[in-house]
Amino acid sequence: MNIQQDIRTQMMETVKTVKKIKPMAGSITNTVTINFVANAQLAVGGSAAMVYLPDEGAAIAKAGSAMYINVGTMFPLYEESLPLTAKTLYENKKPWVLDPAAIGIGEMRTNMLMRFKEYKPSIIRGNASEIIALAGLWSLEGGTGKSKVRGVDSTDRVCDAEEAAAALARWTSGAVAVSGEVDFITDGSMSAYSYGGSVFMEKITGAGCSLGGVMAVYSAVASPFIAALTGAAIYNVAGKRAAKKAEGPGYFQIIFLDELYKASAADIAGHEFILKDMQ
Amino acid sequence: MNIQQDIRTQMMETVKTVKKIKPMAGSITNTVTINFVANAQLAVGGSAAMVYLPDEGAAIAKAGSAMYINVGTMFPLYEESLPLTAKTLYENKKPWVLDPAAIGIGEMRTNMLMRFKEYKPSIIRGNASEIIALAGLWSLEGGTGKSKVRGVDSTDRVCDAEEAAAALARWTSGAVAVSGEVDFITDGSMSAYSYGGSVFMEKITGAGCSLGGVMAVYSAVASPFIAALTGAAIYNVAGKRAAKKAEGPGYFQIIFLDELYKASAADIAGHEFILKDMQ
Amino acid sequence: MNIQQDIRTQMMETVKTVKKIKPMAGSITNTVTINFVANAQLAVGGSAAMVYLPDEGAAIAKAGSAMYINVGTMFPLYEESLPLTAKTLYENKKPWVLDPAAIGIGEMRTNMLMRFKEYKPSIIRGNASEIIALAGLWSLEGGTGKSKVRGVDSTDRVCDAEEAAAALARWTSGAVAVSGEVDFITDGSMSAYSYGGSVFMEKITGAGCSLGGVMAVYSAVASPFIAALTGAAIYNVAGKRAAKKAEGPGYFQIIFLDELYKASAADIAGHEFILKDMQ
Repeated sequence: MNIQQDIRTQMMETVKTVKKIKPMAGSITNTVTINFVANAQLAVGGSAAMVYLPDEGAAIAKAGSAMYINVGTMFPLYEESLPLTAKTLYENKKPWVLDPAAIGIGEMRTNMLMRFKEYKPSIIRGNASEIIALAGLWSLEGGTGKSKVRGVDSTDRVCDAEEAAAALARWTSGAVAVSGEVDFITDGSMSAYSYGGSVFMEKITGAGCSLGGVMAVYSAVASPFIAALTGAAIYNVAGKRAAKKAEGPGYFQIIFLDELYKASAADIAGHEFILKDMQ
Repeated sequence: MNIQQDIRTQMMETVKTVKKIKPMAGSITNTVTINFVANAQLAVGGSAAMVYLPDEGAAIAKAGSAMYINVGTMFPLYEESLPLTAKTLYENKKPWVLDPAAIGIGEMRTNMLMRFKEYKPSIIRGNASEIIALAGLWSLEGGTGKSKVRGVDSTDRVCDAEEAAAALARWTSGAVAVSGEVDFITDGSMSAYSYGGSVFMEKITGAGCSLGGVMAVYSAVASPFIAALTGAAIYNVAGKRAAKKAEGPGYFQIIFLDELYKASAADIAGHEFILKDMQ
Repeated sequence: MNIQQDIRTQMMETVKTVKKIKPMAGSITNTVTINFVANAQLAVGGSAAMVYLPDEGAAIAKAGSAMYINVGTMFPLYEESLPLTAKTLYENKKPWVLDPAAIGIGEMRTNMLMRFKEYKPSIIRGNASEIIALAGLWSLEGGTGKSKVRGVDSTDRVCDAEEAAAALARWTSGAVAVSGEVDFITDGSMSAYSYGGSVFMEKITGAGCSLGGVMAVYSAVASPFIAALTGAAIYNVAGKRAAKKAEGPGYFQIIFLDELYKASAADIAGHEFILKDMQ
């Protein structure tokens, strides 16, 4: 059977199942884009629930179908909330998505990201600089403590993060998605490029965060690789369509949510992606 | 005098007075929809102020005309802030709206919601599951600790929450609003159904939260029942109008704020509601 | 040389340089409008990074080109974060913008605003009431502890805050921007009025906060006075344009972000301002 066709069938199924069962993917995420994450999760058919406290993180981890953890803005109580929630997810075999936002800023963020290594996130989503830095922090191939992270922006190219992404995916037995002009998704053996999107996605805050939240929703009903690829695909479809209607980032963000909502399973599964030749 | 007509006259007065005196309704609310709450309060003509600290909650409770408390996202300091603020509101006879968002998740949320029983919120707004669960927590009729709450979504029907709503309203001597496809508003003796809205209201986060914030604004100048009914009415008017112009949840949310702003006192007071037959 | 023309040339340069080098202006800001601040900073060509923890505030202060501190919503950890961050900015000679939002509410806010006196913010942006109250808190001319602050709204006129603004600017050797129907910008010797904007800017939350964030971006590449005037100018240009297309505050806010993005250096530098006669 054609592997690309098989992947498309799984993506189609993923989108349809989410719209049907409305899985809850809770979040511990930053306060900057928390609203956008929730609205994106709802737009694709999922259900959202955001928490901060340790016991609430654990409760949502158990009650939900998947979870999203984004370390973009750290609070002191995360010292307890994040490890407990990640541990609960890991022990209960719940899929979860890690966004190592702004890796490198502050001691607690570094400590938390270090702790996550043992709780193996199902999907890690970040920009090229963040993926390289995380692989470095976890002492994996392709990583370096010296990636060109600057705040929350990437200063590395997606292609330079492929080795780090593959190494992270092999460690977690999950998938890694590197966001950029072209998205790179890998599970350590199979890899794909997803095309599309819009330059406006870098002119709004939260395109990456909300994509992580959407991948968490999809991970509730699909393998990490398919969930990550489906998330990248719907973002690239919706981004491209919204960009055609928008003159600026404000309107773009609004119409982007509409396009997330309107994109059909066929649109998403049929969106252009290319499998990378594997050795 | 026709009671329905009398209610409409009071609603008309409520909307006009708010636009004229711009009452400040402060909030302690969740970080997910805090922006939407503030913008909705401003759109209907009120003034907003959001705080977290205990002494600030008490200060805003005293300085403002009404207040909104939503327990959607709990922080450790709420252990102090929430009871102190609620107590200050109660002792100063300031109207306040409680949104028992995500009741059932975490120990602190449960404790706080338990504490609120003695500080009798003027209006309680929630979905059917939340209202049933709160009545259960407060050991009132119609309540159960076993409502079908799942995260922040309702899994009960509005009609199944009527008894719990009435019991809560009788306890607080205030009003209770159950949000859903049809809204049910009761003060324990008089009850009304408000129609309209849009399915998009469930596809965005914060329709319920912001409605609570708007009810708080109206409660500054009207009885709890009238304030709750006026809030439900403007949301149903604006939701219906916005839905006609929107293709998705992103644009809907934006236009919904516009429609909140544009709805006239006559539009709101004239909106369809039905009084429930009372024994 | 014509001083007005010289100012326009500097404003033009400021806008162009920001779009070219994309300076990072980190923030510690309130949770209500944090998303809007980040999106406005991105729209004008800057880069954003929001933090809460003390060591992260200090790290961003050092790593970024400028910073924005807004005390709109206080958290307990700000007791450490705010003074450390402000001190780091001051010692590293990094420009920073202070927004004394809701001055007068709560003990910690007052203490923090008092502490900032020694760390001399490059730009102070507030409404008339806030500027008068801050000058009063810092025991400067034109200030009073009795300004008519009510929550986050101004109840004083911009013209009544001119003396306080000038005194604050002389103390900091920076600039002060008083926002209102007409904006007043002063560095203590030179002063300007900037016209335009829209009444909708008071019907949305965060017009002032995000303006402070944008001024921080501009302060990375210009003097405090030019940065503040350029910020006021782009806000007045974009506000005026967006208001022509909007029927309500929801759509206004979205289109306003688009207009921030679309405004050219010539539009901004050419926007009407009047220098105040100086003695």
